[in-house]
Amino acid sequence: MISKEEISEILKGYDKKNITIATICSHSSLQIFHGARREGFKTLGICIGQPPRFYDAFPLAKPDKFICVESYKALLDYADDLVADSAIVIPHGSLVEYLGIERFESLAVPTFGNRRVLAWESDREMEREWMLKAGVNVPMRFEKADDIDRPVIVKYHGAKGGRGFFIAKTKEELQSKMSSQEKYTIQEFILGTRYYIHFFYSPIKPDGYRLSKGSLEMLGIDRRVESNADEIFRIGSMKELADAGIYPSFVVTGNLPLVLRESLLPRAFELGERVVETSLDLFGGMIGAFSLETIVTDELEFKVFEISARIVAGTNLYINGSPYSDFVEPGLSNGRRIAQEIKRANELDLLEEIVT
Amino acid sequence: MISKEEISEILKGYDKKNITIATICSHSSLQIFHGARREGFKTLGICIGQPPRFYDAFPLAKPDKFICVESYKALLDYADDLVADSAIVIPHGSLVEYLGIERFESLAVPTFGNRRVLAWESDREMEREWMLKAGVNVPMRFEKADDIDRPVIVKYHGAKGGRGFFIAKTKEELQSKMSSQEKYTIQEFILGTRYYIHFFYSPIKPDGYRLSKGSLEMLGIDRRVESNADEIFRIGSMKELADAGIYPSFVVTGNLPLVLRESLLPRAFELGERVVETSLDLFGGMIGAFSLETIVTDELEFKVFEISARIVAGTNLYINGSPYSDFVEPGLSNGRRIAQEIKRANELDLLEEIVT
Amino acid sequence: MISKEEISEILKGYDKKNITIATICSHSSLQIFHGARREGFKTLGICIGQPPRFYDAFPLAKPDKFICVESYKALLDYADDLVADSAIVIPHGSLVEYLGIERFESLAVPTFGNRRVLAWESDREMEREWMLKAGVNVPMRFEKADDIDRPVIVKYHGAKGGRGFFIAKTKEELQSKMSSQEKYTIQEFILGTRYYIHFFYSPIKPDGYRLSKGSLEMLGIDRRVESNADEIFRIGSMKELADAGIYPSFVVTGNLPLVLRESLLPRAFELGERVVETSLDLFGGMIGAFSLETIVTDELEFKVFEISARIVAGTNLYINGSPYSDFVEPGLSNGRRIAQEIKRANELDLLEEIVT
Repeated sequence: MISKEEISEILKGYDKKNITIATICSHSSLQIFHGARREGFKTLGICIGQPPRFYDAFPLAKPDKFICVESYKALLDYADDLVADSAIVIPHGSLVEYLGIERFESLAVPTFGNRRVLAWESDREMEREWMLKAGVNVPMRFEKADDIDRPVIVKYHGAKGGRGFFIAKTKEELQSKMSSQEKYTIQEFILGTRYYIHFFYSPIKPDGYRLSKGSLEMLGIDRRVESNADEIFRIGSMKELADAGIYPSFVVTGNLPLVLRESLLPRAFELGERVVETSLDLFGGMIGAFSLETIVTDELEFKVFEISARIVAGTNLYINGSPYSDFVEPGLSNGRRIAQEIKRANELDLLEEIVT
Repeated sequence: MISKEEISEILKGYDKKNITIATICSHSSLQIFHGARREGFKTLGICIGQPPRFYDAFPLAKPDKFICVESYKALLDYADDLVADSAIVIPHGSLVEYLGIERFESLAVPTFGNRRVLAWESDREMEREWMLKAGVNVPMRFEKADDIDRPVIVKYHGAKGGRGFFIAKTKEELQSKMSSQEKYTIQEFILGTRYYIHFFYSPIKPDGYRLSKGSLEMLGIDRRVESNADEIFRIGSMKELADAGIYPSFVVTGNLPLVLRESLLPRAFELGERVVETSLDLFGGMIGAFSLETIVTDELEFKVFEISARIVAGTNLYINGSPYSDFVEPGLSNGRRIAQEIKRANELDLLEEIVT
Repeated sequence: MISKEEISEILKGYDKKNITIATICSHSSLQIFHGARREGFKTLGICIGQPPRFYDAFPLAKPDKFICVESYKALLDYADDLVADSAIVIPHGSLVEYLGIERFESLAVPTFGNRRVLAWESDREMEREWMLKAGVNVPMRFEKADDIDRPVIVKYHGAKGGRGFFIAKTKEELQSKMSSQEKYTIQEFILGTRYYIHFFYSPIKPDGYRLSKGSLEMLGIDRRVESNADEIFRIGSMKELADAGIYPSFVVTGNLPLVLRESLLPRAFELGERVVETSLDLFGGMIGAFSLETIVTDELEFKVFEISARIVAGTNLYINGSPYSDFVEPGLSNGRRIAQEIKRANELDLLEEIVT
């Protein structure tokens, strides 16, 4: 991983009055560019081949400039170009996925947030350790099919975006469905409804919902739309479908907006707080946007099944404010909040606190 | 119940230039405080113990002041403090639930809306009488399990927030599921899709959609997110689940936004109108925000299954306006509409028309 | 059909400084009037009998004037009144349905968009030919029940709004369910999640996402709420329901908002582009608002199952901007976009390019 000192050195050379916000042209890039522009930044899109044409249809979110690479793997060769533009890279899910962890960790360009979070987030064991240390409720895990006594969801470690997950109500159902030699995790299937909560942790903002260092915001909630699981009931029950050789899949294709019962907010903030505080202890903190992926049961309890340690695509719903961010500042998107954080840190000469 | 004369007397003592909007710190309080602040009111949050920290994360919705009580039951002892602040209390579902009907009815502080609605709304028999008198379609009711000839939903009278409801497709299914000695209601289960319509009745606004007295507005629509019923299909059908000892529950954990087919609006307004007009006859009118909880069938007919006689949590989606309230005034929330009503009544010296 | 020359002649007589935007009082009329007013147009509502009262509750969307007709069929007799007001009629789904294709085609009043699209859109065979020529993926079609080897949806040609559609998982299921003598189509039932994408094609806007002529915008996405299909899982699986004599129906009662995974946008634009380019070849172009009704599979592929060649009701969600239109212009609705197009064409003396 690129060292703190190297990033420090690079930042010293930056033209602090002309910082450019850069990201890969996918995932939540429209929002990131839009927010950056509203805060007065220059913007730069990184893409493969030709610039995607869809930005032409969204003039308020089109980056000022593109860097076109042959493949994302080649991005490392363009670090100097990015640095020449005084660029700060905003990582999102696609950037990490396309680059791979190692390349991302070694990219010699300042990136928003703490790169050390990746190790903790991308490994299910370490992520679970983090959540357990934070004292949040997580779904039970079963070592082997033989142990299960309740509905479970099985996740193959190599599965991308939900393809390859499956659900089983009973031990027998599980055993009949398992066929792969791949590494997998058997997790309790929590009955409830899903809420993906968008938080923002600022280590440099001293007011608001205070943590031991900095403060915590909640900017929105979404529910992922999963294909084909979300509409498969239209054709039959899981069992009826299985009998016809049809199985549900959990590939995220979009997001829909929702709000949480207000009496659950104290607990939601507590979850965000615990996860951040623990991250400060474990690896120096998870900085900026993050999301807790939860299920709320009919006992009104949260179960946390995943942490996303950067901006999530569900925030794309809230380009012009959410029912939560409107209480912070009218029309505040996650992309704009990130730009504000960089702007403020820059003004206070604290960029090193929020980029790595 | 506190008398009209007592409230009148209290209002006489109020500093009309410094009215405070107060409510209990839950349910829809963020929106109520936010709306009140935008209309220039002081705001006061009533809470147990320490003020909830989550307001710190939402600076535009944080009340100016808190009154911290030992328990909601003790709130009656703080009536003088509220009166000293010239407070008008905005009741919401949690306030009524936490205080209990009797305490709420005797609270010696002016409250927004007509407290007499509580008797009609909290008793299923009286609520049904109200709806039938209004001539709105309600689900059929069956006296005993033996009579049913269609899908039904069974509601135990003590059930809170949907826990303890269950659905049966047939008589046999119903009989096998009933086990409790509690009082219950067997209601026709209407096949359709749910729309919770947010209305506002103003007895003092002479223009707009006119009623026999005042006028009616429609400010939004939501669908409740119910745990675990809304996502239980992912694991199996009701029958398959029952065979595995798993049952659906209907606890509200949040809300999602939607709009209604425009051709249904005339009928939706007619429902709102009938329910208000009937309330004027029955108990002097249901004032301010209310909601009709409906199902729209595939015959495009509304069935009304409940009236909520005050601000509902589904309005939390529309802090900065809904696809309906934006036609009334850009960015209008229910919380803000309530504050506007109090402001207008105060200016016209008509507060007694809208508080009890 | 009324000829280009006749419309040209009528337009010559128009008072170009006082154009009126007119539509039938249903479907998306609130939004159309609201948008037209924001762009400075006069507005005119066409209704049966008395003006609907619900506009009184939405002052910002109430038309300036009404023309009340005995029946929509009689509208043709009012063409002169509309022309006297220099009216441009905005067609929407209800207008076309109420008037019937022939009457709509012969209405001697300038209407927004290309009337020649109707023939292509209203006939399933021609619509399919259009989509196939455009090279978009469409669901497979089966000539007869005997051929099916996968889940299918059966659509009776006379079915209105989704009533009369049904789904079958297998050949046997299909055969047991078919009973009608009506003309029908058997279509592959695509497993996935539904996205109804709202596009806008401007033949007179030279910048943005360029097509061979004019440019393409994407202004929003919705999912239709279908009664009773969307909530029928609460009571049982399709098979369990069928055993109890209960069947799903697909009548649209409303719409809910959602966004699409950003990495799918390039493909979404490509679909819109292909459909427009092909329409230019086939019949001179589909002008203005249109929608592609798609399913996104777990392979992240779009299947297009219908084209709506005018403003769709799902845009009613986005009166004050969508997560997509906010990148075009803050607060831009489809209704307002239509008004902008007419305004711009009028200023450039290009009205004949966008009305027929």
